[in-house]
Amino acid sequence: MITFESDYTTGAHPEVLQALIKSNLAPQPGYGSDEYCERAKEKIRRAVGIEAAQVEFLVGGTQTNAVVISAMLADYEGVIAAVTGHINAHESGAVEYTGHKVLPLPHHQGKIDAAELRAYLIDFYKNDSREHMVFPGMVYISYPTEYGTLYSKKELEAISAICGEYKIPLFVDGARLGYGLMSRECDLTLPELARFCDVFYIGGTKVGALCGEAVVFTKGNRPAHFLTSVKKRGALLAKGRLLGVQFDALFTNDLYFRIGAYAIQMAERLKDLFAARAIPFFLPSPTNQQFVILENDRLERIRKTIGCSIWEPYDEAHTVVRFATSWSTTEDDLAALAEALET
Amino acid sequence: MITFESDYTTGAHPEVLQALIKSNLAPQPGYGSDEYCERAKEKIRRAVGIEAAQVEFLVGGTQTNAVVISAMLADYEGVIAAVTGHINAHESGAVEYTGHKVLPLPHHQGKIDAAELRAYLIDFYKNDSREHMVFPGMVYISYPTEYGTLYSKKELEAISAICGEYKIPLFVDGARLGYGLMSRECDLTLPELARFCDVFYIGGTKVGALCGEAVVFTKGNRPAHFLTSVKKRGALLAKGRLLGVQFDALFTNDLYFRIGAYAIQMAERLKDLFAARAIPFFLPSPTNQQFVILENDRLERIRKTIGCSIWEPYDEAHTVVRFATSWSTTEDDLAALAEALET
Amino acid sequence: MITFESDYTTGAHPEVLQALIKSNLAPQPGYGSDEYCERAKEKIRRAVGIEAAQVEFLVGGTQTNAVVISAMLADYEGVIAAVTGHINAHESGAVEYTGHKVLPLPHHQGKIDAAELRAYLIDFYKNDSREHMVFPGMVYISYPTEYGTLYSKKELEAISAICGEYKIPLFVDGARLGYGLMSRECDLTLPELARFCDVFYIGGTKVGALCGEAVVFTKGNRPAHFLTSVKKRGALLAKGRLLGVQFDALFTNDLYFRIGAYAIQMAERLKDLFAARAIPFFLPSPTNQQFVILENDRLERIRKTIGCSIWEPYDEAHTVVRFATSWSTTEDDLAALAEALET
Amino acid sequence: MITFESDYTTGAHPEVLQALIKSNLAPQPGYGSDEYCERAKEKIRRAVGIEAAQVEFLVGGTQTNAVVISAMLADYEGVIAAVTGHINAHESGAVEYTGHKVLPLPHHQGKIDAAELRAYLIDFYKNDSREHMVFPGMVYISYPTEYGTLYSKKELEAISAICGEYKIPLFVDGARLGYGLMSRECDLTLPELARFCDVFYIGGTKVGALCGEAVVFTKGNRPAHFLTSVKKRGALLAKGRLLGVQFDALFTNDLYFRIGAYAIQMAERLKDLFAARAIPFFLPSPTNQQFVILENDRLERIRKTIGCSIWEPYDEAHTVVRFATSWSTTEDDLAALAEALET
Repeated sequence: MITFESDYTTGAHPEVLQALIKSNLAPQPGYGSDEYCERAKEKIRRAVGIEAAQVEFLVGGTQTNAVVISAMLADYEGVIAAVTGHINAHESGAVEYTGHKVLPLPHHQGKIDAAELRAYLIDFYKNDSREHMVFPGMVYISYPTEYGTLYSKKELEAISAICGEYKIPLFVDGARLGYGLMSRECDLTLPELARFCDVFYIGGTKVGALCGEAVVFTKGNRPAHFLTSVKKRGALLAKGRLLGVQFDALFTNDLYFRIGAYAIQMAERLKDLFAARAIPFFLPSPTNQQFVILENDRLERIRKTIGCSIWEPYDEAHTVVRFATSWSTTEDDLAALAEALET
Repeated sequence: MITFESDYTTGAHPEVLQALIKSNLAPQPGYGSDEYCERAKEKIRRAVGIEAAQVEFLVGGTQTNAVVISAMLADYEGVIAAVTGHINAHESGAVEYTGHKVLPLPHHQGKIDAAELRAYLIDFYKNDSREHMVFPGMVYISYPTEYGTLYSKKELEAISAICGEYKIPLFVDGARLGYGLMSRECDLTLPELARFCDVFYIGGTKVGALCGEAVVFTKGNRPAHFLTSVKKRGALLAKGRLLGVQFDALFTNDLYFRIGAYAIQMAERLKDLFAARAIPFFLPSPTNQQFVILENDRLERIRKTIGCSIWEPYDEAHTVVRFATSWSTTEDDLAALAEALET
Repeated sequence: MITFESDYTTGAHPEVLQALIKSNLAPQPGYGSDEYCERAKEKIRRAVGIEAAQVEFLVGGTQTNAVVISAMLADYEGVIAAVTGHINAHESGAVEYTGHKVLPLPHHQGKIDAAELRAYLIDFYKNDSREHMVFPGMVYISYPTEYGTLYSKKELEAISAICGEYKIPLFVDGARLGYGLMSRECDLTLPELARFCDVFYIGGTKVGALCGEAVVFTKGNRPAHFLTSVKKRGALLAKGRLLGVQFDALFTNDLYFRIGAYAIQMAERLKDLFAARAIPFFLPSPTNQQFVILENDRLERIRKTIGCSIWEPYDEAHTVVRFATSWSTTEDDLAALAEALET
Repeated sequence: MITFESDYTTGAHPEVLQALIKSNLAPQPGYGSDEYCERAKEKIRRAVGIEAAQVEFLVGGTQTNAVVISAMLADYEGVIAAVTGHINAHESGAVEYTGHKVLPLPHHQGKIDAAELRAYLIDFYKNDSREHMVFPGMVYISYPTEYGTLYSKKELEAISAICGEYKIPLFVDGARLGYGLMSRECDLTLPELARFCDVFYIGGTKVGALCGEAVVFTKGNRPAHFLTSVKKRGALLAKGRLLGVQFDALFTNDLYFRIGAYAIQMAERLKDLFAARAIPFFLPSPTNQQFVILENDRLERIRKTIGCSIWEPYDEAHTVVRFATSWSTTEDDLAALAEALET
């Protein structure tokens, strides 16, 4: 089966798999205190350019969002996010399950706007009733966003500055970070991004690992007894090595960036395929997720041979459809799609 | 390094690893809707002998306990467990984090007693203040227990009957189920155990997998929209295949039982090593975890070459120490331990 | 001090206070099992015209919202509300604290629109990702709304019908119910309102009591062991009689309705005062809360002698201000306001 | 009806009621920002002898326990309490509902033992697995205890010292504080008690008020934005004056202490009645709750005319029964009980 349904349709990148095979028999202590985790953390600290960064591994994206947000917010605080942010729209209320509100801001192709953020904060602190409201205690953004779009360095800097001013942490969901950083439109390096935020994560699951997200606390701000908070939320792996080995591989010989770059290259080819057929884009995405508007008939024909993801209805006769690339997208996949588009 | 520290010191059993390698490139849909999960569920249904059993995969033990317990309890209910039960003692309050109390009963080498359970329930329902208390809404036991001991069929039957009488589910934590079922003292089959309980899980992490626990709802009693509840708790894997592939392998050619049997055999050898040297056992364990009482000096010497797990102080001069076997315990490991015990 | 700041600036209506005085020495059992609660429940059942209605007393509005919503929602569900709904805007995240998301709909002068509600539900059930989202499990509306406006019978009927179709309960926050029912624009009786919803509450705190809200489950749908759920949320009064006595008084000789009618009459007088001076209304409110747009200078002068509530900025030079009436608003209060408006 | 069932069977002490009547018409701002609250806080600060004490009013005991404990514990912490402590035994799991575990210690007539507390803490910090456990983050005791017993100054000092050493707050549940302080066996003053703990509350509901508990943070340690945390838990009263007026009255002319002293005097009379008839005490209680062992036949006869509280079965033929006194216990009540005891 050929599919562009998502970037998590196949297993691990071969180099990650090799690392798992190679390390399999080595006995190691549990719960993340193994050598592989140590080594991976060291490599990540180097990659983000912050020697004192605190790195912790978790299993999946929703889990990471809920653990980090709930461990960092004060009792009386909630988290600001785009209305389209993953935590607000597609995590079954995982943040609310921890007892905290998501405070939605309007989105602009998946992004929040610095000026609107500032206005929100100003209004909140001017409001006489604010003690009866949820205090904004963190800003959550996704890079890339849920629509595949990217914040420019300038946009990120502006949001970061506002967070600094209001003394609330900026948290970047990097579930697909590798694709963002390798996009042609990205004007940021990983160390630059790291410095703009207080905590972020480097997504593994959607960028070549079987599972795993690497959380980076950039300012010595990891919550006290974080391991206990992780355990309390059912998020601690006994064989923590599973995460350490994979991230060790992902940050060896720039694998993480090579995976990102390859998928971006395939996504550009994908865009060409659509553009050549005058298939309109729902929005301009510079990363590995492409959103196009297809006639319903055509969509039905395509889906006979090609997997893709129904995003939302566009109008009576059209649908927004997502096509995603990854390390495992092949030339043959593209050829098959090209053929299907002709039908 | 040679270690008996736990049964999760190495990676995956080779047959599990092979399955991961073999399946790696096959594209599959996410979130547990892949073929491997389907196949593994079917094999597990056959192994437990309940055609209509509902099988769901989760990542780790604490997570499974918290998800299952919180999804099944009513608002006003808590869960009864041995005071030594994992959920009461070693999960950082994961059940309480979901808003429910653990109601502790005394333990007898890790086990609860049916008569004490009945007395607790009788007292509760006779108590005029019960509406101001936490209703007992589930019974949680571990098989084997946290001390490596086993309930006999008769004991389990008695507990199961009480649960039936009071219409509260019996939940069996089978994080080490394979070692229990393959113990020489086990007088139960997996289908028999399955019929005694309302929900239980087949532990993967500690029995040959990299991660993963298979929850089995035996009576069509899986909570509605369970996937959403799993997601809400941050416990849903995007690459659900990781769990499906591993359990598919574990339930192919009886691998799960072979792993259990092998570790039990090694544990019996371990017992012989200790017994031959008149090293006293803290309690008689028929499974893969052995608890012995070591003089502190001796312990210190042993730990120079052999990994093991400090359980608790015994007295001023002695310590209770746990030695665990697994699929990866070797003859060489045993020989090294024998040598270390001579020092 | 003369104040129109809110409808909870004074103590209890004299008839309520008399009832407290009269009952003070009578010994009664605790936790709501007293005679006064029984009598009040009976009177309320009669007033709402549902013999089998289940009535429970709670202390305050936010508490009532959080208790009722969290006790009635399934694990995977959230509650739909207007973005301006009290639970979404002004309860410090009390619903989220119970682990459930508030799902906001646009508001129209504080009201949700039946067509938009239906569209939301249709979209949700058409969405392929709905298992990753929060299921809509209840609809929450306020009557009157936070802006003092009212749903017409037809509007309520339409919302009620949609809830019935989707089998989700309709919950009406009646913190100010008395003012709604006695409004000149109200085209509903209390029994009619009761039949449209599955659960609602009759607000006491803001309609003449010292504290207290009477929750009415209209369809035998009170959650099992509700008292225990109430206790678990810290909402159970030892001297439950405090609530029983007050509601007994409020539903004796139509006091609840007389209080509502009187406050409405005073609010109409208030409107005349503003209208006579061409002071613009922010929106047309037919209940006891009036929202007007005042020049900032004028506002400052008025506040020297008259209490009122700053609602929100209107523009650089104007502010939206709330004036509320209650049972304790006097002729003298109105005269003083009239005078202040002249300054 | 004559009853010794509890100390909350009647309404408010006449002086409290008078204060409610007198203040009823005075307009005041809401949510605890009224003059009465201010005045009551000032009087309480003086009574506890700590000028900088932060005083906050809540409605009931379970609510106060849950709010204070959850607002003060860190994410990874639980609260130590006697197994018989109200929060562990009779609050329907209200603390667990906030996501925190109660860590039970053995009780000695309702009290914890300083040496056992110390041993618990030492063991915890020696335990290699402590990161997988719940950190002890607070000590909760009741004064008087649930069995009516009292800690001596020396006992309290010892517990306080251990808390100081481990830097965890000592929280005293004073739901019946007035009876403890006025007991003949009490060797503490209120200011002394206040200095031993980090936070405690002065119970109103059971000592003459209609409702209300006054929380005192003794060391400037009130959690930030406490009002918002209170609101978030549904515990904020709109008419906060209801609490302020009552505590203002209770701390005027020593009313709180007079109520305590009167009830203690009546309890001593009660003890004499039992002792004179050789009715055995279940335990020696120096406060307003007396626990006696009655033959079941006799109990049945007594209950025909006298209300009392069934505590627990003693043996087949006897029952432990609680008799409580309060401000409203009269000479006639005692005479009626004496008569009933003769039957």
